[in-house]
Amino acid sequence: MQSKRELVSKDFRYITHATSGAARQGEITTPRGVIRTPAFMPVGTVATVKALYPEQVKSSGADIVLANTYHLMLRPGAERIAKLGGLHSFMQWDGPILTDSGGFQVMSLSKIRRIEEEGATFQSHIDGSRHMLSPERSIEIQCLLDADIQMQFDECIALPADRSEVERAMQLSLRWAERSQVAFSKLANPGQALFGIVQGGTDAALRRQSAEALVAMDLPGYAVGGLAVGEGHDAMIETLENVVPFLPEDKPRYLMGVGTPQDLIEAVARGIDMFDCVLPTRNGRHGLAYTWQGRVNLRNACHADDPSPLDLKSSCPPARAYSRAYLHHLVRSGEYLGSMALTWINTVFFQQLMAEMRAAIADGTFPAWKEETLERVVRNAPKTETSP
Amino acid sequence: MQSKRELVSKDFRYITHATSGAARQGEITTPRGVIRTPAFMPVGTVATVKALYPEQVKSSGADIVLANTYHLMLRPGAERIAKLGGLHSFMQWDGPILTDSGGFQVMSLSKIRRIEEEGATFQSHIDGSRHMLSPERSIEIQCLLDADIQMQFDECIALPADRSEVERAMQLSLRWAERSQVAFSKLANPGQALFGIVQGGTDAALRRQSAEALVAMDLPGYAVGGLAVGEGHDAMIETLENVVPFLPEDKPRYLMGVGTPQDLIEAVARGIDMFDCVLPTRNGRHGLAYTWQGRVNLRNACHADDPSPLDLKSSCPPARAYSRAYLHHLVRSGEYLGSMALTWINTVFFQQLMAEMRAAIADGTFPAWKEETLERVVRNAPKTETSP
Repeated sequence: MQSKRELVSKDFRYITHATSGAARQGEITTPRGVIRTPAFMPVGTVATVKALYPEQVKSSGADIVLANTYHLMLRPGAERIAKLGGLHSFMQWDGPILTDSGGFQVMSLSKIRRIEEEGATFQSHIDGSRHMLSPERSIEIQCLLDADIQMQFDECIALPADRSEVERAMQLSLRWAERSQVAFSKLANPGQALFGIVQGGTDAALRRQSAEALVAMDLPGYAVGGLAVGEGHDAMIETLENVVPFLPEDKPRYLMGVGTPQDLIEAVARGIDMFDCVLPTRNGRHGLAYTWQGRVNLRNACHADDPSPLDLKSSCPPARAYSRAYLHHLVRSGEYLGSMALTWINTVFFQQLMAEMRAAIADGTFPAWKEETLERVVRNAPKTETSP
Repeated sequence: MQSKRELVSKDFRYITHATSGAARQGEITTPRGVIRTPAFMPVGTVATVKALYPEQVKSSGADIVLANTYHLMLRPGAERIAKLGGLHSFMQWDGPILTDSGGFQVMSLSKIRRIEEEGATFQSHIDGSRHMLSPERSIEIQCLLDADIQMQFDECIALPADRSEVERAMQLSLRWAERSQVAFSKLANPGQALFGIVQGGTDAALRRQSAEALVAMDLPGYAVGGLAVGEGHDAMIETLENVVPFLPEDKPRYLMGVGTPQDLIEAVARGIDMFDCVLPTRNGRHGLAYTWQGRVNLRNACHADDPSPLDLKSSCPPARAYSRAYLHHLVRSGEYLGSMALTWINTVFFQQLMAEMRAAIADGTFPAWKEETLERVVRNAPKTETSP
């Protein structure tokens, strides 16, 4: 068991190339490829990044995508995907994949749920059938999917919540982290990595306690979970400031389910290396575009007669070639191409944003870049958005 | 007026390169490019071929797309598209575009309609607003859209219908053809072409009367309309046999709103050069794939564990790379990528089918190709399908 875990960590490593204050630019090496950090992972919930071909995800600059244990265990089933050769070939993505453990979705999506020491029982949001997730089953599923980065099973609660409730869930998540680690050590392949998830709500003491306990487990990476669940941008940033100092320098740090361009920039400035969020894809399907001049709602009538392109700074073809009038028409008509083009545009924007951050950290201009970009890109965007 | 029409016909021409019985292989030259015939036109109803990027339509082998006057007049409006530079730049398609006149959609889509000598008044299917289409207004819209091939305004009735009703609509359509021609002569650009539409239901005498009257008008092309509206495959083919002999050899012949692979093959064998139909795109969105082994319903559970690709004869990447299990999963999950990939696969299939027909007519193997392909491709498909 111990020897297998050592093998694993040999092929998974994180290196920092440059820093700017707490911000870091580096890379994660996995057997399936390098992840340039800070990295934004497009969300491929049910084994597809919605409305994008895998080739578009790749060419957007994404090195890694996220997929969801909860969704895939319900449909098409983890054993089925394993029998078909694993998630990578199933979804036509040969780069690294990170899978969420299912804990968050049990809380946010499933209907009736019971959380006990053993695990969570819940009803499928698809057909009402009963299912169980435990640390052991979650890791088993993630290994069946052949995920390169796997997440410990955790309990994620909605905020605001009583401190006693936050502490109970955090302590349970720590015990589940240990069980996840044992299961992972038995099942995972060399080069795969298990990340722990720091919980504790917005309580600094609980967060520190969670972080220190997880760090003592010497996991290959650490996530900050339980944020973007209703606490607001400022509380999220404050929590990061209370957590990151207790995470090791030589391991990647992943802020789960975040966020807006502002969230990403502020979190990178506080030492976060990895993100995932449905905002670029979900907002794209709803007619909202992220551009280098701020967020644009293509549904608005002001675009109906506008022949100008959406964003000439974008490297995404529809952002440069399609008129705002056409995008407006597609969105208003509920056409597939509207969702497809805006999802692509937003995915490219988020990747360009991360690439600019990496470059700015590397060449020492991050503080000035941050100030200028927040002013330019964020002025039209709401302060924070959550991603259930 | 006369001089302008002569100019127009100068830049639009049809040439037959080869024949096999009644089947012909040729090309239509327009100022915006050559259309290889027999040709299948993907349907871009509201200025987008649903769920496809324009580049995918182009690379599928399509030389021309169809768009709908009825839909575009209601949203975003023909005057708006004209002000934005015309339909080609609006929808990012620089090849030829054919526009339907709106007659068929007034019948099939709008709510309350009154057909009078002057034209048709109807309520929008989108918001219930009142609108009018006449031959003059239909041509004006098609010219505002800058359509390369425009259709006369006609009245299309559902079959079966009384002979007197079929005759009344056919005669009205003839008078509307003349008014369409006058309007077109005033408004169209050089190289644009107006097609007449032969009506008359399944009545041979009425069809002949309609065809002869339209041919006397010396239009640049002729369509067979009013089919695929409930009469069935055999009656459609019989009607073609009653119409095509009365159409000129040196003008393209277009069968509107048709059809299945079987319909296309049988109609080409009877001398038809152009087709349009929503089947490949609509069926793609509903989980049905056209393949060289017949039609495949990806929704069926038999595909859930099938690692084999859909169609290795297809030149469409997802047909070769995605497993049937993955396509099944995407369709069952209602994912965009399922509709996108199957629409793409079907569009490529229809274009490959036309390309094979062109090659078989050119090299003299069409009869054998037809027999073999009908056996191979059509065995799983229903006999006929309509396309409202």
